[in-house]
Amino acid sequence: MADRGTEKRSALVVGAGDATGGAIARRFAREGYVTVCTRREAASLEPLLERIRADGGEAHGFGSDARVEEDVVNLFNTIEEKLAPLEVVVFNIGANVNFPIRETTSRVYRKVWEMAAFAGFLAGREAARVMAPRGHGTIIFTGATASIRGGSGFSAFSGAKFALRSLAQSMARELGPQGIHVAHTIIDGAIDTEWIAKNFPQRHALKSQDGILNPEHIADAYWMLHSQPRDAWTHELDLRPWMEKMA
Amino acid sequence: MADRGTEKRSALVVGAGDATGGAIARRFAREGYVTVCTRREAASLEPLLERIRADGGEAHGFGSDARVEEDVVNLFNTIEEKLAPLEVVVFNIGANVNFPIRETTSRVYRKVWEMAAFAGFLAGREAARVMAPRGHGTIIFTGATASIRGGSGFSAFSGAKFALRSLAQSMARELGPQGIHVAHTIIDGAIDTEWIAKNFPQRHALKSQDGILNPEHIADAYWMLHSQPRDAWTHELDLRPWMEKMA
Amino acid sequence: MADRGTEKRSALVVGAGDATGGAIARRFAREGYVTVCTRREAASLEPLLERIRADGGEAHGFGSDARVEEDVVNLFNTIEEKLAPLEVVVFNIGANVNFPIRETTSRVYRKVWEMAAFAGFLAGREAARVMAPRGHGTIIFTGATASIRGGSGFSAFSGAKFALRSLAQSMARELGPQGIHVAHTIIDGAIDTEWIAKNFPQRHALKSQDGILNPEHIADAYWMLHSQPRDAWTHELDLRPWMEKMA
Amino acid sequence: MADRGTEKRSALVVGAGDATGGAIARRFAREGYVTVCTRREAASLEPLLERIRADGGEAHGFGSDARVEEDVVNLFNTIEEKLAPLEVVVFNIGANVNFPIRETTSRVYRKVWEMAAFAGFLAGREAARVMAPRGHGTIIFTGATASIRGGSGFSAFSGAKFALRSLAQSMARELGPQGIHVAHTIIDGAIDTEWIAKNFPQRHALKSQDGILNPEHIADAYWMLHSQPRDAWTHELDLRPWMEKMA
Repeated sequence: MADRGTEKRSALVVGAGDATGGAIARRFAREGYVTVCTRREAASLEPLLERIRADGGEAHGFGSDARVEEDVVNLFNTIEEKLAPLEVVVFNIGANVNFPIRETTSRVYRKVWEMAAFAGFLAGREAARVMAPRGHGTIIFTGATASIRGGSGFSAFSGAKFALRSLAQSMARELGPQGIHVAHTIIDGAIDTEWIAKNFPQRHALKSQDGILNPEHIADAYWMLHSQPRDAWTHELDLRPWMEKMA
Repeated sequence: MADRGTEKRSALVVGAGDATGGAIARRFAREGYVTVCTRREAASLEPLLERIRADGGEAHGFGSDARVEEDVVNLFNTIEEKLAPLEVVVFNIGANVNFPIRETTSRVYRKVWEMAAFAGFLAGREAARVMAPRGHGTIIFTGATASIRGGSGFSAFSGAKFALRSLAQSMARELGPQGIHVAHTIIDGAIDTEWIAKNFPQRHALKSQDGILNPEHIADAYWMLHSQPRDAWTHELDLRPWMEKMA
Repeated sequence: MADRGTEKRSALVVGAGDATGGAIARRFAREGYVTVCTRREAASLEPLLERIRADGGEAHGFGSDARVEEDVVNLFNTIEEKLAPLEVVVFNIGANVNFPIRETTSRVYRKVWEMAAFAGFLAGREAARVMAPRGHGTIIFTGATASIRGGSGFSAFSGAKFALRSLAQSMARELGPQGIHVAHTIIDGAIDTEWIAKNFPQRHALKSQDGILNPEHIADAYWMLHSQPRDAWTHELDLRPWMEKMA
Repeated sequence: MADRGTEKRSALVVGAGDATGGAIARRFAREGYVTVCTRREAASLEPLLERIRADGGEAHGFGSDARVEEDVVNLFNTIEEKLAPLEVVVFNIGANVNFPIRETTSRVYRKVWEMAAFAGFLAGREAARVMAPRGHGTIIFTGATASIRGGSGFSAFSGAKFALRSLAQSMARELGPQGIHVAHTIIDGAIDTEWIAKNFPQRHALKSQDGILNPEHIADAYWMLHSQPRDAWTHELDLRPWMEKMA
């Protein structure tokens, strides 16, 4: 990341959920970025936007279906034309499901791919479209253990995550020499979310010993990736709690 | 592969093109399998079916769109009900394209995934459906260098190939302990096809020094995979010409 | 492997133990190779040599310390000058130990490397020396799960196995284009050996359901690798029982 | 890294050369660590120690042969007894050589392993010895492209680097759950060193466009790794210039 002077710049988080995506959005807002958050339902973004604004940041929320090309193209155009040039795009949509192969419906297989891979392609391509002519910018894709290992029952989730990882590699090889930093993370462990707290209370209890990932720390890692000078870029970063068994 | 006695068994090649898929089909026919070949256009299968029959084999061809669930389910049902129990399923559809990321249309990205990953999921799942209750069978997915490396311009092709590889891993982990051999190949190099001969004549000229893959030899490898006893199964097999630079 | 006519050729198995190495030696002897077996103690080779001869094969045994350069150079010279040109060299020495890092002595760490990596380098280099001028030959290194995964307590064993794998890659990239087939296997599971029978009887009992690797089947795979035509070479081959959890 | 209060702590850089190792040592000194630097020749450390002291840091230099167990054990004992508890150990010795396999002497093969793998084992084991009872600490091993790819001619260098990487994995799996952060870096590209400036002037000229790695930025990455909270540890970090072709 080079110094871009005092002009306003924007950071987009596609899939700004309550935990990781939200923490990333707040982190970039804190660093002075015009922060744009999307989820399918605009209304669900309100608490996050309010929190960012209460902390003194600038935040904009859009209800946008990340799987719908027109929505995504319009979103990027709106940000570029109305808000500020995009310097950072984070794609953070997952769709973790597990079914035995014979019980994996084509609907599930397709939908998981649309959410976690096709939507990543749309966001990544649009990011490339606006960043490449400027010769700088950062694009980060959120991966998981399923990005590097096809576990039993994970044909749908892992299929999408492998595809997203190959997208990150392909884009890095093409866009790196054009000045754009493309990175992929591998989050290997449970994250401190309401969903984990509710569905895996024992797992969540490990929080007291730092046994699950704190979204704020994931956000720090994303900020670090964006902050790397271009002579020393990281393409793939794994993050896991100290107690977690390495995949 | 255990000895299955004298009952008739079938082998299905989804994507039985002129080169690799055709050679695989002929190989299994030669070993006595009722061989079933599919392509989108049934008519284009005729030369292959005739060649198998001329060699004394039993061959059946179906025009079937591998991306259409109903087609695939019907295909498997027809084979099981009318022909012979499926012992081998080979998924052999590729869709090698290369576009800079900004010129990769959502239509291309989706179509390549549908052909090379979603269709693989449908074939794999249906194979699991008929094989799992019997506790034996072989499922082979054809991969490429793009299955393990996201090269520049390959976001669509590599995305589909990575997804297919994760499918193979996921199914192997689930179905191996159920007696089903799931394997994935990595074909790393040009194959001796009419398409290569026409479009890359210099490359094709390497044939005289064994510099491109002979489809018959790929077929031998597939037969070998199927023939492995279940105490010594290979999950992933790479194949490349001696002159080829290792990816 | 091209047809080499009727001239005698030799196959060397460095580390021709009772199970895997012995089975590989018998396999190549059965195919007509002058088979050369080495272990540190020549006397321990006698049962294997007798068995090969009883089966009609030609076998020679040498007591040779695979870690001692002079021994290895002399061995290759003796074979080339007195027996027959080396067409196949298999390196099959392992040294599976597990110690917590703090209890891993420098002596163990060094010794395991000398047996499983340095000795592999010596055998591989000497094989290259005699094969490269002829432009053909096969060199196979036996690996394990520890070749691709550094498990807890395996710093010594995995360190040696990773090194051996990198040797295989490096030699394949250099020697492949010179006509020499360099391959690496990943044996992922217990092998049917006396040692397993004695020390892991429960594991060995899985033999009745093909749950452990039969050395004869490993030998078949090595023969298959050597038999591959040079337009379709495999560099890395994994082998595991159907019941085995994929690493 | 948890807050350790105000007690003095030490950071050891094994292989504190002029560029990367030196920059890492200066970085940790700047953060308040009692910094210990080693090279084979103590005298060659003087400029670095003086620079650290001039910047207000505390630095100690030891001539120590990292391949000699007694030296390494004594070094760790001296630091722990005379200076301050070790909180950070960085192993930074490389030995990049390239020879065709037939020209790789056993002396070179062994020496490169002793410098880049065996010495890493000694440093890592001793670090584990002093850190494990305390339940915290950071151990970082410096890797390279050769750590994940056995290139032609790199049998010795890559063999050592693969071994070092497996050591990092093995130690991470054992020591992570004991509170010790073990990380491995993959430096993929030329570093701005005098050696590169002298031997690869064209490559070095890329410095003007950030085309080679700045040692200060590598040092920042090492500090970042050490600073990660234990719920979000990175095990493997790649670093490469934007212009560099991804391996």
